[in-house]
Amino acid sequence: MNRTRSAKEPPTELSGVICAALTPLDATLEPDASAAVAHCRRLLRLGCDGINLLGTTGEAASLSVGQRTSLMRAVAQSGLPLECFMVGTGASALADAVELTREAVALGYAGALVIPPFYYKNVSDDGVAAFYRALIERVADDRLRLYFYNFPQLSGVRISAAVIAEVEAAYPAVAAGIKDSSGEPGYADDLAARFALAVFPGSEAFLLDGRARGFAGCISATVNVSAPLAARVWRAADDARAAQGELTAIRAAIARYPMVPALRYLASVIGADAAWLRVLPPQAPLGPDDGRALLADLERCAGYAELAEAFAL
Amino acid sequence: MNRTRSAKEPPTELSGVICAALTPLDATLEPDASAAVAHCRRLLRLGCDGINLLGTTGEAASLSVGQRTSLMRAVAQSGLPLECFMVGTGASALADAVELTREAVALGYAGALVIPPFYYKNVSDDGVAAFYRALIERVADDRLRLYFYNFPQLSGVRISAAVIAEVEAAYPAVAAGIKDSSGEPGYADDLAARFALAVFPGSEAFLLDGRARGFAGCISATVNVSAPLAARVWRAADDARAAQGELTAIRAAIARYPMVPALRYLASVIGADAAWLRVLPPQAPLGPDDGRALLADLERCAGYAELAEAFAL
Repeated sequence: MNRTRSAKEPPTELSGVICAALTPLDATLEPDASAAVAHCRRLLRLGCDGINLLGTTGEAASLSVGQRTSLMRAVAQSGLPLECFMVGTGASALADAVELTREAVALGYAGALVIPPFYYKNVSDDGVAAFYRALIERVADDRLRLYFYNFPQLSGVRISAAVIAEVEAAYPAVAAGIKDSSGEPGYADDLAARFALAVFPGSEAFLLDGRARGFAGCISATVNVSAPLAARVWRAADDARAAQGELTAIRAAIARYPMVPALRYLASVIGADAAWLRVLPPQAPLGPDDGRALLADLERCAGYAELAEAFAL
Repeated sequence: MNRTRSAKEPPTELSGVICAALTPLDATLEPDASAAVAHCRRLLRLGCDGINLLGTTGEAASLSVGQRTSLMRAVAQSGLPLECFMVGTGASALADAVELTREAVALGYAGALVIPPFYYKNVSDDGVAAFYRALIERVADDRLRLYFYNFPQLSGVRISAAVIAEVEAAYPAVAAGIKDSSGEPGYADDLAARFALAVFPGSEAFLLDGRARGFAGCISATVNVSAPLAARVWRAADDARAAQGELTAIRAAIARYPMVPALRYLASVIGADAAWLRVLPPQAPLGPDDGRALLADLERCAGYAELAEAFAL
């Protein structure tokens, strides 16, 4: 326990704004595959990083195994990037969950989002762990990347950290992540701190501080209609974080030298004007060797190119 | 104590990335006013929100009152936006600080950054507070906006919260903010939590989480050469925060209705296709009245225009 993400490679690339996609239906209430493909394509174009096909929002629990399989196949054959897709393959019956999950893996979907069986209530941790272990054993495919789906308000089952720990210890390469739709305070944060798994809250309300809290993004229903805004939050927060890293490195490189003389040296380079080198006593100018060393230090910083261009160096 | 910013109007507009500007010198070591104006103009063009003229980086303590006054006047006459400028007007002698601060106010600078007298060591809180009170009394100008400058490594004086509290209580409209260059852990956070003042750390290393920590930005030396990157961090963090607010409001508006029917209703509007209205039992479609009400709710959200454009509504 208490492992960090660096303890093992992240098992998949699923991250960022993931839309729990609606399932279009034709007039006979059959899933409309071509409309679903078009909807997913548009969501990706509008900025989603991934799609959760056939989740709660996709009304998967109201569709048969055959209907779900047909839709999974249609999307797989559409040319959409399956490495961005996770499919809901949970079911009340283990055999159904196995069949759906096996199909998802065989088709090349990047992940399977599995809600625990949702008929019986007050089931034990041992029973929930046994379900996931049996599912993994029966799918019997190393390519499986399993995402636990915690949504006790609908499933009647809270997936405890003990269950996740047991399954993750037994199948570390298979256990890939968690979607938490419970809204239980601290639940997702606790899991993010304890496990080397991708943790997705079920709401885009946490995107801004998501990385700081150790989340991999979000998987959300409302992103069906808020994708561009959600993508903007995630990207801008990401851009700010990356730029802060570059900025702090630049400052640290300069701060290894006496501050005012070092800045005067750089100003003389930027302005191509040796007058900047003058300092008032008791400051002393930076020597040419130190100046060259400082410039070399800066050139090794990731943010230098942007500054050099802005200052026309 | 324990007042929030909403308890009184922020006394000035100074915020964001503020550069502690270098002072260009001519061959006789006199401040080069025209070069200084050009430098400040470039810093603002490169993304700085403000300039701290004649601070520590500007070597103000190595310049006479006359030299400092001349530079202040030259910048004031240059047409640069003085509402973005704070001037360092602290001095070892009270009379000098009064003269410089009075001049800064008269010229129209938005703020005066005042380091405590820096010759005597181990001075008492009462002595430091008496200095600031005497300064404010003698400047005797309602337009004064005073920024405390905490830099004990150079001044030998740590400005305590008790000193700030005393001065702020006596002159609430004058006390405007604090620059903290001490690097003392928790100092700036504590002041930001306790006072309705603009708190600026002396480093751009804290820009990313600055707003979350209650800071007004930063005032930093290295921004002389990192302004574009610093501006990008502050803007992107800001954009992410604003967009998160809009996004969360959109989600909240939708979440007042049954989720899947509401999303299906919106999808039918977005796609101009009534097929989206179909739901599988046991879900029920959103009625037209609820649909219209939902759309009206969304139209009141700040983020709606962006989404409407992206989805071509």
